[in-house]
Amino acid sequence: MTDFDPYRERRLFGRPLTLEPQATAVLVIDMLNDFCQQEGLLGNPDSLTLCEKQNQILNSVRHSGGRVVFVNEQHRPNLRPRSNFARRMSHSREGTWGSEVVASLKVEDSDIVVIKRRYSGFFDSDLDLVMRDCGLRHAILVGVLTNICVRATAHDAFFRGYDVVVPEDAVGAMSPLEQLSALYDISTHFGWVTTTAATVEALEARTPIENMDVVLSAAMNER
Amino acid sequence: MTDFDPYRERRLFGRPLTLEPQATAVLVIDMLNDFCQQEGLLGNPDSLTLCEKQNQILNSVRHSGGRVVFVNEQHRPNLRPRSNFARRMSHSREGTWGSEVVASLKVEDSDIVVIKRRYSGFFDSDLDLVMRDCGLRHAILVGVLTNICVRATAHDAFFRGYDVVVPEDAVGAMSPLEQLSALYDISTHFGWVTTTAATVEALEARTPIENMDVVLSAAMNER
Amino acid sequence: MTDFDPYRERRLFGRPLTLEPQATAVLVIDMLNDFCQQEGLLGNPDSLTLCEKQNQILNSVRHSGGRVVFVNEQHRPNLRPRSNFARRMSHSREGTWGSEVVASLKVEDSDIVVIKRRYSGFFDSDLDLVMRDCGLRHAILVGVLTNICVRATAHDAFFRGYDVVVPEDAVGAMSPLEQLSALYDISTHFGWVTTTAATVEALEARTPIENMDVVLSAAMNER
Amino acid sequence: MTDFDPYRERRLFGRPLTLEPQATAVLVIDMLNDFCQQEGLLGNPDSLTLCEKQNQILNSVRHSGGRVVFVNEQHRPNLRPRSNFARRMSHSREGTWGSEVVASLKVEDSDIVVIKRRYSGFFDSDLDLVMRDCGLRHAILVGVLTNICVRATAHDAFFRGYDVVVPEDAVGAMSPLEQLSALYDISTHFGWVTTTAATVEALEARTPIENMDVVLSAAMNER
Repeated sequence: MTDFDPYRERRLFGRPLTLEPQATAVLVIDMLNDFCQQEGLLGNPDSLTLCEKQNQILNSVRHSGGRVVFVNEQHRPNLRPRSNFARRMSHSREGTWGSEVVASLKVEDSDIVVIKRRYSGFFDSDLDLVMRDCGLRHAILVGVLTNICVRATAHDAFFRGYDVVVPEDAVGAMSPLEQLSALYDISTHFGWVTTTAATVEALEARTPIENMDVVLSAAMNER
Repeated sequence: MTDFDPYRERRLFGRPLTLEPQATAVLVIDMLNDFCQQEGLLGNPDSLTLCEKQNQILNSVRHSGGRVVFVNEQHRPNLRPRSNFARRMSHSREGTWGSEVVASLKVEDSDIVVIKRRYSGFFDSDLDLVMRDCGLRHAILVGVLTNICVRATAHDAFFRGYDVVVPEDAVGAMSPLEQLSALYDISTHFGWVTTTAATVEALEARTPIENMDVVLSAAMNER
Repeated sequence: MTDFDPYRERRLFGRPLTLEPQATAVLVIDMLNDFCQQEGLLGNPDSLTLCEKQNQILNSVRHSGGRVVFVNEQHRPNLRPRSNFARRMSHSREGTWGSEVVASLKVEDSDIVVIKRRYSGFFDSDLDLVMRDCGLRHAILVGVLTNICVRATAHDAFFRGYDVVVPEDAVGAMSPLEQLSALYDISTHFGWVTTTAATVEALEARTPIENMDVVLSAAMNER
Repeated sequence: MTDFDPYRERRLFGRPLTLEPQATAVLVIDMLNDFCQQEGLLGNPDSLTLCEKQNQILNSVRHSGGRVVFVNEQHRPNLRPRSNFARRMSHSREGTWGSEVVASLKVEDSDIVVIKRRYSGFFDSDLDLVMRDCGLRHAILVGVLTNICVRATAHDAFFRGYDVVVPEDAVGAMSPLEQLSALYDISTHFGWVTTTAATVEALEARTPIENMDVVLSAAMNER
């Protein structure tokens, strides 16, 4: 039998994380029509089922004094990124319906919108500046895809010293295996994997967030 | 039965990649005593078995006019990175045996050494400058861990427009599942997954590199 | 008598620069109502006199196959950058007249608009990606202010290996001394200082651009 | 008569700056043999006269709980940066005497050394990470040249939200005019220009630092 997790014994779960609400951003990643609607150019309608959980977090962040930041991939109509479109058809073009945030999430006046051009929300965008200018130190990540754009953003947030929180029921991947694997790597190397309920409780009752014990082997047996 | 790869039908394998040898770098990631030796602070001696394949690529790159770049994580003795060490014990300290490249790989005078402070070789390092200054456009990635530092470097190379090539038998992960999942994501979103043999052939005979069809479900059945 | 330029003898003027038109971008920096119109919040109407020269370059770049990139400082209405506004009143707010390119310059459909948040056009923006994605290697800089935003952009273009060309009659500073000093530093350390006429000739007749001998002492005597 | 400073009336001097000593870094820029010694490849021995003032600041920072960071330009022997050496002869090669900090300044064990490859200490280096990892928010800049590497570092520190302090008697330029012009731009757009004495007082007695009124016209008359 294969040991799916030989690294397990060395794992450090890290300290539980206490969020300071005014220093907390929720980064809503690529919840756009082209990625989440049946008619979207790369649409996976399962993503829409995440909105209910996401809205719980967004409301909680807004009410407790943090900032909601929509991080939207968007491409210019007159410029074809050589690398980015090599593996994916053209999508999320500026000015199209596909590049808009899904209607199930509401962008409010106090929210901030950051445009990204690559998978990571931080790469050559002004997301880091927004975090610095607003005094934000904790980043809750929700959206799609867990294993591509959410994960790439988690990398870059972690590298810069932000605390990365990923509620597993508010992010979606291309497949169950990719969801599992991304959450495992995030929990072991980049941040705290948790649930929406625990995230809301952390914001509203200051309950520390425990890092989830994402288990590779057991999860595979279930499937 | 679970469909491990619902995304499969949409996959674009991209064009085969022809390497221009003089514009090719091989990035040797974290092949350091602390990561690869039994006595290393985070050592996984399985990593040493990768050296034979890696040396084939290094020799081929050197002989065909490209550059070998060692990308080594290293930490200052008098500075404790808040984020980086939260999940991993202190390791690869400047000036220690643990921070040196393993003896099975030879650093030659024409090679370049880049120090990195986070998982990605590009993050706040001068790796991108080295690539630009040397006119390098293709990046072959070898080393450890496939799912952490290799992958993070693949992200950042791809974002900058470099062609990313990952020979699967020259990179090692924490577990078979993480190896598989990282290679799947790289092949679908970041670059070309291939073998050492095909990489050497691409450098020496200009054979185009085909992107490997990394299969999630079948691979799991085998294990 | 003070020697204004003790460094003079060590100066290297560098090779004349031959522009490849298809690899040439003209970066139009901050030619916005708030900076250039009498009614603008930080307006200096002298800037409008630069438009005639700038249009000559823009037309020449468009006709010879290069790209016109407008690099516009813009700030969100609901976010106050701590550092940026410490020394300057609020200006160029998103959605206002002040943040629009002056009417004397025409933004065409094939042009690219990049939003910047700090003085440098490259800082945490996607300008570098635009240059890479379009295969642009030469950057002609026009706009305001020579000693602040133009210069900061020249720094960052130079650091990344782009050839920096500054036509002195298409850029404007806060004062004659600052214009002189910025051009001196650019010509000695960052790029080629030249004229609009020579730039147009370089694009249309492939005449190499000679770096101007900006003279500190003589220029001061004239004034 | 020319008005050297038409912008003068609009100048905002900003609030006086109170330094928190534990959050203060002094960045010692390019105080290397190649730049500062008679025998150095680009040597200007006037720079050595700055060391007395610099040592006062270094000692004060060390004693009050801040960090001393040496920011040293250094180039690999086997790599020729295309852009950087176009205007300056080869210098500060890794492993040579020329790349060492001058003997008049002492690098202590608790100090941090950052290698830079371009004029700015922040560009593709880990200086920003050092600042973040150590919780440093104020940056005192000393060294050479005021108008090139000191200024470029001031730009990038300011863009990232660090408070920039430049003691005018601890930085040196290529010429009096370039010193004046650089200090003027820094005081109007990037930070606080002050003296060594005021900096030491700010660290030891918490006296707020007032931004200096750098005057273009009067200064020119004196010369």
